[in-house]
Amino acid sequence: MQRYFTDQSIQLQKPFSVSGDTFHHLVRVMRAKENEEAEFVAANHQVFLGKIQRIAEKSAEVLPTKQLKHVVELPIEVTIACGLSKGEKSETIVQKGTEMGARHFIFLPTEFSVAKWPTAKVARKIERLQKVAVGAAEQSHRAYIPTISYCSSLKELVQWPGKFKIVAYEESAKQGEHTQLHRQITNMRPNDEALALFGPEGGLSTSEIGTLTDAGFVSVGLGPRILRAETAPLYFLTAISVFTEMR
Amino acid sequence: MQRYFTDQSIQLQKPFSVSGDTFHHLVRVMRAKENEEAEFVAANHQVFLGKIQRIAEKSAEVLPTKQLKHVVELPIEVTIACGLSKGEKSETIVQKGTEMGARHFIFLPTEFSVAKWPTAKVARKIERLQKVAVGAAEQSHRAYIPTISYCSSLKELVQWPGKFKIVAYEESAKQGEHTQLHRQITNMRPNDEALALFGPEGGLSTSEIGTLTDAGFVSVGLGPRILRAETAPLYFLTAISVFTEMR
Repeated sequence: MQRYFTDQSIQLQKPFSVSGDTFHHLVRVMRAKENEEAEFVAANHQVFLGKIQRIAEKSAEVLPTKQLKHVVELPIEVTIACGLSKGEKSETIVQKGTEMGARHFIFLPTEFSVAKWPTAKVARKIERLQKVAVGAAEQSHRAYIPTISYCSSLKELVQWPGKFKIVAYEESAKQGEHTQLHRQITNMRPNDEALALFGPEGGLSTSEIGTLTDAGFVSVGLGPRILRAETAPLYFLTAISVFTEMR
Repeated sequence: MQRYFTDQSIQLQKPFSVSGDTFHHLVRVMRAKENEEAEFVAANHQVFLGKIQRIAEKSAEVLPTKQLKHVVELPIEVTIACGLSKGEKSETIVQKGTEMGARHFIFLPTEFSVAKWPTAKVARKIERLQKVAVGAAEQSHRAYIPTISYCSSLKELVQWPGKFKIVAYEESAKQGEHTQLHRQITNMRPNDEALALFGPEGGLSTSEIGTLTDAGFVSVGLGPRILRAETAPLYFLTAISVFTEMR
């Protein structure tokens, strides 16, 4: 069933109205009709089955008939931070990373970043990626739309206040370092916050790795194969899912 | 360091010649010069460091100076079978799946496949995907180029002779089935062969799931979120890596 995010507080059996982008997607794109059902996510991330009662020109009235309690959120609140990559890699990271459960994405320029986000374009880039996140969150039946933000430097990023700070480092993979990621993840408890940083195509410099480890980041390998910039975050998120959601 | 696949048998200190596509990539695309080094994979999947001794018009002579023994192949020989998907999804699956260690890819039409591969185009599609696999295998420093093949029906696919036969089923994920994948993978031993089938955008039909389970396929969920057709194989491959290569 199709899922839509709203900024409403929703209560069982109390009709609410959808408008704006959600209305457009529901009625214009998906062509929902009166009496049809869909899933609606409230502002507080609760999810409801809702019956479309009336469709007007710019809004629709929905009756919440049932609360859906099947949890699909990763137990860990994961932030994926990525050095700016070329082309559409940031879209790929946000789309697939959302499907795989990330809660936040941060993009930042790093030493080997070929791509740049000029100051004047940052807002537009974020807006575009935020739309990708909404689409992927609806498609994968998430209860949260991941946030997208831009950080102007590594110095700023290392001040991130959460508990688990991880950096994926290609040299760790090459040297056959296979234990640290497992150790980090098995130390995580539900609702812990973890940030993982991934370099752009050229990776991170040794000086950047130094700055990060000085700030308490743990350097981990992601298996023995060299992964592309946009593939590495997916490996990381899946590893968290496998260790915390499976078995 | 750049890695190239050859169809040569390579022995330490015995110069060999590269030509064809490998020569083109090495000399024309990457602009390698005499006395530079690169990694070369022999026909038997051994990997050597090689020094380029002479570059001629259409071939180059390489001296193997060292054998590289760092293993990057998944311990399980994984075949990823996918229902035909729209657009460039098959390229994405082959590229990222190769990075994540798959050894074989099979594409096949299934009941809900919107995309078709007309008989006259199958060879060209496979050739194109094989090139994607070579590029991704070189980039991720694999010792094997995954094979790509086309299978004309599910009936033919279910005759696959290996030990572990798995089908990813969205309904399993929705019903909160989180144990079967873990159970399957922890039963696998090095060099075991596993095939995992993934539906196209619309998933697999209940009748197809019936055919598969009758043929000994085990239906598994891939975590609680609904994954896109091209994302699901990456989750599966990472789960195998996490359980067999990490810790």
